[in-house]
Amino acid sequence: MTTPAGRSSTHDVIVDAVKRVLPDLRSPVALHEPSFGGNEWQYVKECIDTKWVSSAGKYVDRFEEMLKGFTGAGYAVATVNGTAALHACLLLTGVEHGDEVLIPALTFIATANAVSYTGARPHLVDSDTATLGVDASKLDHYLRETAAVRDGVCRNLRTGAVIRALVPMHTFGHPVDLDAITALCARWQIQLVEDAAESLGSYYRGRHTGNFGTVAALSFNGNKVITTGGGGAILTNDPALAKLAKHITTTARTAHRWSFMHDQVGYNYRLPNLNAALGCAQVEQLPGFLESKRALAQRYFDAFEDVSGVSIMREPAHCRSNYWLNALLLDRPDVAVRDRLLETLNGLGIMARPVWTLMHRLPVYADCPRMDLAQAEALDARIVNLPSSPFLAD
Amino acid sequence: MTTPAGRSSTHDVIVDAVKRVLPDLRSPVALHEPSFGGNEWQYVKECIDTKWVSSAGKYVDRFEEMLKGFTGAGYAVATVNGTAALHACLLLTGVEHGDEVLIPALTFIATANAVSYTGARPHLVDSDTATLGVDASKLDHYLRETAAVRDGVCRNLRTGAVIRALVPMHTFGHPVDLDAITALCARWQIQLVEDAAESLGSYYRGRHTGNFGTVAALSFNGNKVITTGGGGAILTNDPALAKLAKHITTTARTAHRWSFMHDQVGYNYRLPNLNAALGCAQVEQLPGFLESKRALAQRYFDAFEDVSGVSIMREPAHCRSNYWLNALLLDRPDVAVRDRLLETLNGLGIMARPVWTLMHRLPVYADCPRMDLAQAEALDARIVNLPSSPFLAD
Repeated sequence: MTTPAGRSSTHDVIVDAVKRVLPDLRSPVALHEPSFGGNEWQYVKECIDTKWVSSAGKYVDRFEEMLKGFTGAGYAVATVNGTAALHACLLLTGVEHGDEVLIPALTFIATANAVSYTGARPHLVDSDTATLGVDASKLDHYLRETAAVRDGVCRNLRTGAVIRALVPMHTFGHPVDLDAITALCARWQIQLVEDAAESLGSYYRGRHTGNFGTVAALSFNGNKVITTGGGGAILTNDPALAKLAKHITTTARTAHRWSFMHDQVGYNYRLPNLNAALGCAQVEQLPGFLESKRALAQRYFDAFEDVSGVSIMREPAHCRSNYWLNALLLDRPDVAVRDRLLETLNGLGIMARPVWTLMHRLPVYADCPRMDLAQAEALDARIVNLPSSPFLAD
Repeated sequence: MTTPAGRSSTHDVIVDAVKRVLPDLRSPVALHEPSFGGNEWQYVKECIDTKWVSSAGKYVDRFEEMLKGFTGAGYAVATVNGTAALHACLLLTGVEHGDEVLIPALTFIATANAVSYTGARPHLVDSDTATLGVDASKLDHYLRETAAVRDGVCRNLRTGAVIRALVPMHTFGHPVDLDAITALCARWQIQLVEDAAESLGSYYRGRHTGNFGTVAALSFNGNKVITTGGGGAILTNDPALAKLAKHITTTARTAHRWSFMHDQVGYNYRLPNLNAALGCAQVEQLPGFLESKRALAQRYFDAFEDVSGVSIMREPAHCRSNYWLNALLLDRPDVAVRDRLLETLNGLGIMARPVWTLMHRLPVYADCPRMDLAQAEALDARIVNLPSSPFLAD
């Protein structure tokens, strides 16, 4: 049993291990900072010099081509941020007012908000401890009690609503169990939308995340593996959906030399060329960032190898993770231990943080339909994210 | 009467007059291009050098301060684009699912789309030929037949819906008749939201547009007076609304050192620091841009002074306009004459264009409630916008 004295000792040992990984402590050490060591300035300057900073320009096209090339997706559509990409993904899969959309309780609020924007309702799903993402097996059991496929759609038998889509999120860059999840979606006639906001550079069985569902969303926020300031992208392998994705994210305007016709309610979700220019320079450096991030993860593994009671999250089976955010996992859920670590590390200028507040614990999503969330609740009391900027490995 | 021969002659005279204003014809001449002659490079480079490109950084704060200073508004909240600003403005004024929002039929589709995002319905209003914006007198007559104030809210007696807000748009930078419109809103208990996307640098009775209603939206798209690549802002003089505007545009996260709590459905609508840096450099040059734009408008006035059958739109009474887009007005509505001018000018590389398709003529908004739109329809057949970049005056 862990005694208060034991706790204290574990706490100090953990803090020392983190400090060993971050020896040249410039305070504060951010959770994740971008690196701009490539052509960022050259490309951005070219935008300014040519005046192409806004809704048109070659860098948007080039950025989309680079994302296709890197992820292997057939199509990429750049957007103004990851939330916009996810909202568009839900619209593209036919999510409508009154529908339900399955999302993990353990996610950033953008996943739930994107569902809300469509007028649908988040329906909260538990986590798999092995991946930190959606537990497909537990979800399947839950759906057998709760839902039925009728006329080709999945219905919640309690609420009567259509369960239109499942949005697994690849937590901290670790892919969910995509074999199990794609099988589940096929069996239950549910659209698969991958929330790949955190998983650029992460692979499942050698294939890049974002290629397993109907559509997927990426994010290039300032804290992600690469950044465009703010930005995101929609990935798909369906040419018709790709065309529609570009259309609805650019005000649904139909082509004409000067006339303004729009054939549906569209969105102003396009990425400015200025931000895409930054993105092009960032993708060029992405392989190097990923190598550095693996090296940093290895340093955390090494530092914690002999520390009992905790571990550093490792990529799941059949996966190659980008290790976007390294996660310290307490063996046993313990909010007091977690919070004391957060206090100490942040006090030292090491910007550690807990996982996002679980969705059902936010008042705004407290009334959403949900399954038992015991594993997500346990993970919440076990996780401390640690600084993960790629340059920390250098 | 205008004969076919007469038309031909008028057409040629108009084209010649436009060519006189744009003598050093570099083809194509855009409708509106940005100018980057100030500190754009320096500020953007500083963002990259310091790694502050994204959701935090000093340029967002500085840009908001500069916008406050320039417009005289008490508060400014920068957003990712003008559509996002307008959507947030509607949320801030309490627009809800099922409400109606009065908007001009003659506007860019973003005005109508922002209403749709809230679940409310656009209710289309006719234009005043003197301002090209909402005709307050005609709207007042229409409301007397259609609506009634009950329990402090205005209700559409035909649909039963609450008419929550009026969103006049300052067309091409020309302010609407704000005395009449503020009086109408007070009389009918309707919230006033100014769509000031086009009117940065435009004043009504000496006061900057965007200061007359509850809230207002600005746009810094690439075709506007100043640009941030993509960007917008919310203006208000109400401190509580300003605080709420910042809150809902930044995912409604409540302050904590590391914990992620959010107290409502929020939006990822913040402007990246990279784009704000561009904006700071642009605001510094704004007074010069406005002078150049007035000089260009004067050149159009001079060129068309002796051309019969047409005029160039002049700032309305009590207004100082930014002359964002110069508008050629045919004395008489004539779609054939308008379209022939558009064909010829665009054929010459002069990117003239008609006004946006009127909202009730777009299939998606064809079924919206609306008043008689005779003046908007006449204006549609009279307007040709002409190139208006500030540097064209130099």
